[in-house]
Amino acid sequence: MSEKADTNLLSTQELTLIHRYWCACNYLSAGMIYLRDNPLLKQPLKPEHIKQRLLGHWGSSPGLSFAYVHINRLIKKYGLSAIFLAGPGHGAPGVLGPVYLEGTYSEVYPNKSEDEEGLQHFFKEFSFPGGIGSHCTPEMPGSIHEGGELGYSISHAFGAAYDNPDLLVTVMVGDGESETGPLATSWHSNKFLNPIRDGAVLPILHLNGYKINNPSILSRISHDELKHLFMGYGWTPHFVEGSDPSLMHQNMAATLERCVQEIKSIQKTARNTNNPKRPLWPMIVLRSPKGWTGPQEVDGHKVEGFWRAHQVPMSNIKDNPQHLQQLEAWLRSYQPEQLFDENGRLKAELKSLAPQKEQRMSANPHSNGGLLRKALRMPDFSDYAVALEAPGKLSSPNTKPLGKFLRDIMQKNMHNFRVFGPDENSSNKLDDIYEVSKKTWLADYLPEDADGGELSPDGRVMEMLSEHTVEGWLEGYLLTGRHGFFSTYESFVHVIDSMFNQHAKWLAMSKDVPWRAPISSLNLLITSTVWRQDHNGFTHQDPGFLDIVVNKSPEVTRIYLPPDVNCLLSVANHCLNSTDYINVIVCDKQKHLQYLNIDAAIEHCTKGLGIWDWASNDQGEEPDLVMACAGDIPTKEALAATSLLREHFPTLKVRFINVVDLYKLSPQIEHPHGLSDREFDSLFTTNKPIIFNFHGYPYLIHRLAYRRTNHGNLHVRGYKEKGSINTPLELAIQNQIDRFSLAIDAINRIPSLQKIGAHVQEKLRNRQIECCRYAYEHGVDLPEEDEWSWKH
Amino acid sequence: MSEKADTNLLSTQELTLIHRYWCACNYLSAGMIYLRDNPLLKQPLKPEHIKQRLLGHWGSSPGLSFAYVHINRLIKKYGLSAIFLAGPGHGAPGVLGPVYLEGTYSEVYPNKSEDEEGLQHFFKEFSFPGGIGSHCTPEMPGSIHEGGELGYSISHAFGAAYDNPDLLVTVMVGDGESETGPLATSWHSNKFLNPIRDGAVLPILHLNGYKINNPSILSRISHDELKHLFMGYGWTPHFVEGSDPSLMHQNMAATLERCVQEIKSIQKTARNTNNPKRPLWPMIVLRSPKGWTGPQEVDGHKVEGFWRAHQVPMSNIKDNPQHLQQLEAWLRSYQPEQLFDENGRLKAELKSLAPQKEQRMSANPHSNGGLLRKALRMPDFSDYAVALEAPGKLSSPNTKPLGKFLRDIMQKNMHNFRVFGPDENSSNKLDDIYEVSKKTWLADYLPEDADGGELSPDGRVMEMLSEHTVEGWLEGYLLTGRHGFFSTYESFVHVIDSMFNQHAKWLAMSKDVPWRAPISSLNLLITSTVWRQDHNGFTHQDPGFLDIVVNKSPEVTRIYLPPDVNCLLSVANHCLNSTDYINVIVCDKQKHLQYLNIDAAIEHCTKGLGIWDWASNDQGEEPDLVMACAGDIPTKEALAATSLLREHFPTLKVRFINVVDLYKLSPQIEHPHGLSDREFDSLFTTNKPIIFNFHGYPYLIHRLAYRRTNHGNLHVRGYKEKGSINTPLELAIQNQIDRFSLAIDAINRIPSLQKIGAHVQEKLRNRQIECCRYAYEHGVDLPEEDEWSWKH
Repeated sequence: MSEKADTNLLSTQELTLIHRYWCACNYLSAGMIYLRDNPLLKQPLKPEHIKQRLLGHWGSSPGLSFAYVHINRLIKKYGLSAIFLAGPGHGAPGVLGPVYLEGTYSEVYPNKSEDEEGLQHFFKEFSFPGGIGSHCTPEMPGSIHEGGELGYSISHAFGAAYDNPDLLVTVMVGDGESETGPLATSWHSNKFLNPIRDGAVLPILHLNGYKINNPSILSRISHDELKHLFMGYGWTPHFVEGSDPSLMHQNMAATLERCVQEIKSIQKTARNTNNPKRPLWPMIVLRSPKGWTGPQEVDGHKVEGFWRAHQVPMSNIKDNPQHLQQLEAWLRSYQPEQLFDENGRLKAELKSLAPQKEQRMSANPHSNGGLLRKALRMPDFSDYAVALEAPGKLSSPNTKPLGKFLRDIMQKNMHNFRVFGPDENSSNKLDDIYEVSKKTWLADYLPEDADGGELSPDGRVMEMLSEHTVEGWLEGYLLTGRHGFFSTYESFVHVIDSMFNQHAKWLAMSKDVPWRAPISSLNLLITSTVWRQDHNGFTHQDPGFLDIVVNKSPEVTRIYLPPDVNCLLSVANHCLNSTDYINVIVCDKQKHLQYLNIDAAIEHCTKGLGIWDWASNDQGEEPDLVMACAGDIPTKEALAATSLLREHFPTLKVRFINVVDLYKLSPQIEHPHGLSDREFDSLFTTNKPIIFNFHGYPYLIHRLAYRRTNHGNLHVRGYKEKGSINTPLELAIQNQIDRFSLAIDAINRIPSLQKIGAHVQEKLRNRQIECCRYAYEHGVDLPEEDEWSWKH
Repeated sequence: MSEKADTNLLSTQELTLIHRYWCACNYLSAGMIYLRDNPLLKQPLKPEHIKQRLLGHWGSSPGLSFAYVHINRLIKKYGLSAIFLAGPGHGAPGVLGPVYLEGTYSEVYPNKSEDEEGLQHFFKEFSFPGGIGSHCTPEMPGSIHEGGELGYSISHAFGAAYDNPDLLVTVMVGDGESETGPLATSWHSNKFLNPIRDGAVLPILHLNGYKINNPSILSRISHDELKHLFMGYGWTPHFVEGSDPSLMHQNMAATLERCVQEIKSIQKTARNTNNPKRPLWPMIVLRSPKGWTGPQEVDGHKVEGFWRAHQVPMSNIKDNPQHLQQLEAWLRSYQPEQLFDENGRLKAELKSLAPQKEQRMSANPHSNGGLLRKALRMPDFSDYAVALEAPGKLSSPNTKPLGKFLRDIMQKNMHNFRVFGPDENSSNKLDDIYEVSKKTWLADYLPEDADGGELSPDGRVMEMLSEHTVEGWLEGYLLTGRHGFFSTYESFVHVIDSMFNQHAKWLAMSKDVPWRAPISSLNLLITSTVWRQDHNGFTHQDPGFLDIVVNKSPEVTRIYLPPDVNCLLSVANHCLNSTDYINVIVCDKQKHLQYLNIDAAIEHCTKGLGIWDWASNDQGEEPDLVMACAGDIPTKEALAATSLLREHFPTLKVRFINVVDLYKLSPQIEHPHGLSDREFDSLFTTNKPIIFNFHGYPYLIHRLAYRRTNHGNLHVRGYKEKGSINTPLELAIQNQIDRFSLAIDAINRIPSLQKIGAHVQEKLRNRQIECCRYAYEHGVDLPEEDEWSWKH
């Protein structure tokens, strides 16, 4: 379409240089895939120079490098601060090449030096055991987006751009990746970016044409449809299409130039007029052949410009002399001797094309966000505490004070803190935040928004009904050195299971990369929990996210189940100050009984679990029963069960344990928070029955505690996938986490109560049925007279 | 925009009738939310008529009913076969209303009869404990899409339309839902629908304006952008916009008429010319006020047309006489006495507007797919078996013969079977399918597609790089009574965790709905598994999907880990013949050792687990050790470990157990497949050490088996989140599932070997390091001389 260059922006000399630089990148990409020796092709290519196992993705690499070198030109010309995200991260060779050529790679990995020996290491170790990953992993300087899983490049890019007004975030979007849901909706992120206070995102959609074995959808619709699509998403699309390098260089240079001008003009206008109206930001559609400049045909089959170029375009090199010859011809087509000097160093005239020092995209500190991270300025969380006269008397909504705490954190950190959630911060009772900062909104406004819309282009609360996009923004924001807090509905947090997995893996890997500085933890509040989804029904009942979390590295995962307001405040304060973790906090938003005053809460949360003396009557002695719990509603029911037991058996010694930090249950060698066996045994005894009332699926507790001495006596209750439209009480009863079921369970497990207990069990069962029937008939939670509070 | 009606298609009388019918729907929606008594408002409204707890979503209900009644008109006019999917399924009142009015509800739930008493039940039980769900749950006649979680309405609709050439699938898409990733990409499904052999999908995007507390993005961009967006997605958008009911009725009638005509014309042209070129299908944008016809203002705040109309538009009715009065005025504005006769039955002139019998969307058998389901015609799976001379000698790719089996199933079932996957069926070695049926593709073609493109408009293999869309298509296809098979990469199956959860819940609920006939199981092959992701690295290593699966109801979940080709065939055959399950099959695609001939495989898979006598030497006696395993690669390593042990300790008695059906480990009371304790004990002993080599995260085995007698001696190995770029052997070693580690583990656990074993352990450790180093240096899996096969 745009095969003919619009203008000849580049002089012949510029064109030649930039093309040679690109050839150097492509040479490196191919070298990484094929060569274990003879890196500069000083000798004729022989089978022994070829790697044993050919791995890597050639297909998108030349296009990635093409964009990279052209962005470099603009960085130098305008002194831009830019970073580069590669959506098709498996095309790592196309990014590793320029990163190596601009010297950053050798700076952080001195054995990959800028000479023949270093180049050989660089080639040989790519996609080689113990070596360089085949995606844009945390080990790659400049990367904040691995691209192992596809779909999150645009949302990561926007996260990086927020509150970085001088940053240009360039992001290559694969056409395969474009088919994923998360990517398809993330184009709408432009309605959440303020040209005054935020930086710019410049997406380059790479119409490479093919996925692994299939054409990509966007490459097989008409030019018009494609144009409509991006105009519909609210962008101004620019097209760079073709395969002739000279024309494509001119086109790309001119188009990038135009985009940078548009961005500057948008920013200037908005900033000068202080009018943050949503602009139509530019984006580029780069249509180039898959495996561009690689072999056109292999064994009679089309390769360049077809799906066969996706990974290794030619295999079986060692045993097929024709392939070997073809490979050599291909590699020599880049004229390595014109690119590198005798010692294997990029020639000076090419070297000078790259930006210097921190202007290099691979060395921009935004891509190693921990370097820029400043600790949050925090108000004293205890100022938001609920005052209690005694435990278990007062009811209060658990998340409401957290909203006030977040509001005041926001006020103190109006440049590096944001709150995220999919349309649910009000529903989750965090709405006090809006007093200080509203919801970011750059789409259209209507008059009625003035009455409760809480929208503003300056808002710092990020809400879009896409957990994927919101999570992606947050990740990008954190990876570039800022802070955030995400709240979401429990059952639908599963939407981002895979994103959680990938971020946890990124963090775990980053810990082993010495030059990566720690970033803020990802703080995830899971609320609107299973036990209050009685009215929404079965689809809204799923506390299984924690089962995903515990599969990930103990170095980066933390789980907290604060039982009340003050514990939630203490936990949130701790999480917001931490780095390099994913902190998962589970706490319901509704009104619940309050147990600990702030000092007790701090002490309790610091320990992570503990005996609640006021709810126990085993002082100084072995108890007859340990009643344990984790989670707000399970705690209340466990306390009520304890009450029932003590009412009926006043001499029964019950020890009451509440667990906030779930990993305390884990063996010490499995998780740094795990209790020693001695500590565990002294709390849970070695031989007394334990009833454990758990917020989630009960098996998780067994998974964590199966090695503990007293595991044989551990009886866990939790959600076991029983639910429908019912009352909270009935939901609890169906899953046997209610006070009556727990008390009945306990009686079953205490030998001394076996006989006398039967009568009490009968009474409890009857009362359970009565309460349930009442709640059912009246459509309420509980009969009022049964609204329990702690009386002992 | 289109407030003025284009034409006056409806006569005054038609308009009046259709409006009254719609009023009846709206009256029912409001009644469901508010009334427990006085359902026909025969008496003045009093506090005691009002429900205790007000629940339900009014906001989108009127719009849903509006579309429903207008579609009804077209069904009658043209004798269409249509079904209705409500993307915003929480607007259930808007669908329940018309379903009740056309009589279906009363037919399946006789106590919700079409009279005053039935109406009262209908009102009172909505969103009431034990009553009618607030989403389009499986209990709702006509529903195949609950809409509890948002994002899948379009993909479900397409799944329903495939291979149903005479079906019109109408689908309301919420503007909130539209922000989700899965929905945003699913618009591209039109590139995968063939107008000749498939039915039509008519999406109605409901620009209701607001989500819970926020405006929706699509309602706040310009008309032009919106138009571009849908043209870009490849649709022809038609706009129906406004709030005046008369004009809107005329517009909707005319627009729907036009859409049905366009669809008929597209189908006719394609079918007459036998040219399945991708058409631009029509879709409708319906912009109507949220909470349309409801209270305009409450307590001085705008409600109709604002987010405040989302759920219950007015609360506190019982204690606020003004609210009570306003509610009564609102309800009476629909003039119930003009809608229902004295007995509470819809008046005859309105009744006649609805279609009859199976033409009612709520009674269309496609929405209760089990009624239409025909069992697959199956070739004999044993014809695809690999012939073995002895166990553990031959290597063969595990999934390849399955591809041939699927190919021949396809050939026998070219109208009700499809194979699904995200661009990976070739990579997953199922490519023999293409001999019979290619990949569905209705986007553009290029000449090179002829050489290995495997694309065709008639293809029955569904590939798009969106696990969400592909899974959604499959669900829709199964729910309407057909069969399918889905294969996907293990680590990225987490992308659809939440869809799996929702479908499992749908199936579990459906089992309790007596009138729902069983549908085909969802068969999910998880391949490209963790143990062969050494080269892709850490991001591609995640076997944790099974941890999600086991949280769901045992009534609907099945997990199989066939160790070789013949077991995979046997398992796949079983799964494809089953109904109402989600069958998860885990099997790697690469070349692996083969163990069982087909007869042995059938016997083994039928039992689900068993002792492999040929690999055991405890015949007739108690073993010294049980070596157990589940999964192809763990099985090989466990066998190799057994070899090593017997080589070093010839008199050691090792019992070798392989587990195919994972739930066999579960207690019998937890899962119908669970072994009795007696069976379990006789296999695993009550006191001998067990080494269990598991495919996934090791804790899952403990979770399933913690109640078994010999659990204390159960030592499980599996993936423990250790990985990077390495060799398969090193990956195994890092996670300790390799032969050497297992043999070392075993020696540690057998008291009689404690002393003499140390020397052997030392040797094993050395060999482990040597092998690892060799593989490392040469970038291969294993030194060739260590390529193990069974020798005993």
